[in-house]
Amino acid sequence: MKKVNIGIIGLGTIGKGVYDAILEKSKLIEQRAGVSLSIKGVCELDAKVLGQVDPEVCPLRSDNSDDIVNDPDIDIIVELIGGINPAKEIILKALRNKKHVVTANKALLSDSWSEIFKTASENNVQVNFEASVGGAIPIIRVLRQNFVADDIHTVYGILNGTTNYILTEMLRKRCSFDEALSMAQEKGYAERDPELDISGKDSAHKLAILALLCFGKGYSPKEIYTEGITRIDSQDLKNAKAWGYSVKLLAIAKNSSKGLELRVHPTLVPTEHILSDVNGANNAVFLKGDLIDEALLFGKGAGQKPTSSSVIGDIVDIAKNTAFYGASYLIEENLDYDTGNIKSKAMEALEVSYYLRFTVTDKPGVLAGISSILAQNDISIASVSQEERNIGAEVPVVILTHKAKEGDMQRAIKKIDDQDFVSAETVMIRMEE
Amino acid sequence: MKKVNIGIIGLGTIGKGVYDAILEKSKLIEQRAGVSLSIKGVCELDAKVLGQVDPEVCPLRSDNSDDIVNDPDIDIIVELIGGINPAKEIILKALRNKKHVVTANKALLSDSWSEIFKTASENNVQVNFEASVGGAIPIIRVLRQNFVADDIHTVYGILNGTTNYILTEMLRKRCSFDEALSMAQEKGYAERDPELDISGKDSAHKLAILALLCFGKGYSPKEIYTEGITRIDSQDLKNAKAWGYSVKLLAIAKNSSKGLELRVHPTLVPTEHILSDVNGANNAVFLKGDLIDEALLFGKGAGQKPTSSSVIGDIVDIAKNTAFYGASYLIEENLDYDTGNIKSKAMEALEVSYYLRFTVTDKPGVLAGISSILAQNDISIASVSQEERNIGAEVPVVILTHKAKEGDMQRAIKKIDDQDFVSAETVMIRMEE
Repeated sequence: MKKVNIGIIGLGTIGKGVYDAILEKSKLIEQRAGVSLSIKGVCELDAKVLGQVDPEVCPLRSDNSDDIVNDPDIDIIVELIGGINPAKEIILKALRNKKHVVTANKALLSDSWSEIFKTASENNVQVNFEASVGGAIPIIRVLRQNFVADDIHTVYGILNGTTNYILTEMLRKRCSFDEALSMAQEKGYAERDPELDISGKDSAHKLAILALLCFGKGYSPKEIYTEGITRIDSQDLKNAKAWGYSVKLLAIAKNSSKGLELRVHPTLVPTEHILSDVNGANNAVFLKGDLIDEALLFGKGAGQKPTSSSVIGDIVDIAKNTAFYGASYLIEENLDYDTGNIKSKAMEALEVSYYLRFTVTDKPGVLAGISSILAQNDISIASVSQEERNIGAEVPVVILTHKAKEGDMQRAIKKIDDQDFVSAETVMIRMEE
Repeated sequence: MKKVNIGIIGLGTIGKGVYDAILEKSKLIEQRAGVSLSIKGVCELDAKVLGQVDPEVCPLRSDNSDDIVNDPDIDIIVELIGGINPAKEIILKALRNKKHVVTANKALLSDSWSEIFKTASENNVQVNFEASVGGAIPIIRVLRQNFVADDIHTVYGILNGTTNYILTEMLRKRCSFDEALSMAQEKGYAERDPELDISGKDSAHKLAILALLCFGKGYSPKEIYTEGITRIDSQDLKNAKAWGYSVKLLAIAKNSSKGLELRVHPTLVPTEHILSDVNGANNAVFLKGDLIDEALLFGKGAGQKPTSSSVIGDIVDIAKNTAFYGASYLIEENLDYDTGNIKSKAMEALEVSYYLRFTVTDKPGVLAGISSILAQNDISIASVSQEERNIGAEVPVVILTHKAKEGDMQRAIKKIDDQDFVSAETVMIRMEE
């Protein structure tokens, strides 16, 4: 049986998971794929971790990635250190050395996909990146292979397990954002520095990769409107639920004749929609296409074993190509096919319904004041929920609106927040039907 | 750009959908895949349909499949006539003529996969069959490629859109099975002869294909315990809902150290489980594996466009292989790797909880009579629902049991159905937690 040699860069949680699974599953992989995977080298800066690698299994153990990337026997480099640098330099060097690359690095791919795929194309090698979006969810291969004839016009993604876990726990336990974040950190779902997750930036990185595959055009995550979940309170989740909605941090891509929307923000989703059942650290991608109609892919968005599953699927894909054909062709070179007229729509032009929570000092005329400002800005109210009178106290006024323009909404909120009866910044959450 | 020639056998709903989509999407496919698809020939028995094929587009139009299968210019044969014969002969002839095959034929594949894959292997050609299970749902490619390192030990499939639509409508509209079936037929979801769907046999065909991919061993659909939905009444769906369950026709595969379970039957699923939200004509496959943990793939299980999407994905897969490598390798030859010790478990040994609806003539002592027979057979009751007394009338008694052995349950029901207070056959539905 043809043997394919792998070099793993980074033996962190995922790297160790891939290492262990390749050893444990070697027979199964041989039976199913007809190729044999061999870990020829690993690179790891932590001497203690590196020292635990069995020399019988892996002859080349180094704290210098060059030793792995320059090794002539290695066919596939698996980059699992994350972040932009030095991951970018390592990957580019590997590609120039005509080695195929498997990576889970969404920050890097969304930043530098063009340079990476161009370099791969020039060197006739392949880059696989299934684990970069949605952990074990097979969204990358499905978009590239199964839905190759589909005009995917709508994507709703729950792409970050940490924030989905936090929102789920805030509702279940009626706890604060900070308490739920602490729980996520205790469970290992959230990093010690959770900024990338809770700000929505991690979701924006992943949305940029999905948009590239769906629309054939690269968007920088910086061009994506991105709003995190830090302003959401457990009372918002409770209010939404009472009205028949769940709150999810959605990554949204919509392409229509009016232009392309790319945005990441907390969103009210009807409880009868299948996305509202995606709870805890799970991820999901909901797609609409002209042929498939609707599809959902659901699974674990992170974690050692689920992510390893995707990484190994990518390794085996390349291994089979090199073993059976002696080559691995590129579909990446076709990615930036630019359908020409896809223009990103300004957030100003967005038209959705809104959930609004105003924090006001209770006195007669407050609701009238709020409603008249909304009306002046062409925003009509669908439902209002006000607690019992409690004159002089700080109370919430919660409103669901009909569809309104984002620009109007921003202006209205600004004006309302300037009123003397408003005692805290208004919470606004967009809705999707 | 390399051109790949296709021959389509059968221009029914799916065949016409594939034909139209290839013409309409040719530019998109070229951009994404780097290959050009050309429809060289079609075979169709209906002269009127065949006459509508544009000779400019498709030079070879015939009512004899030999004309297509023997054409030296055709690279890929797309079989879309369904059923065992003559589809089997056509596919085998195509493979022997060294043509790759794409098929959606679950009845044929579950019956003759071994002969088909062996013939493909001997002739170095590829057989793709994504559309055979779950329409647009990418389950086949995901199992073969993404989850290649996973020990998939549990599969729950809602694999038949007709029966799922019927069960959904029976609950929504509180209508009878026959009324819901008529609606399904009017909407084009059900065939005029719905036997294959409502008996569960269509689901068993698909489960056999999934079991082959998951466990590397072929099972005949005849070996799969199969029960349809004809005995379910809308009151069962209502009762189940009141207790927090949905009723779905599930195709179940479970592999453990105790043996392999393969079964198709109506099943109570907790409403909080994501499968319970798969309504209408949608399909879904829920998987558990040692690496992925849990995954769900959801989408349209049938219909012209969704099925065409999967068929074209399969065509493009082969087209890219032949265009870029001049060959298309087989992973099918590895399908029957037989892990050796997978034995099918007898239904007798199954241990699940049960929903039971007894139809009895109301008189004192009836519940006592039922419970004592259940107790004698080691079956303990979890909940009972009995309507108000209505002495002498025919009333339902509904019971949820704790886990019990299938053999004990069958014996208990037989004994209870022999009692003089029982006036109709008892309805029994198995549960999954």
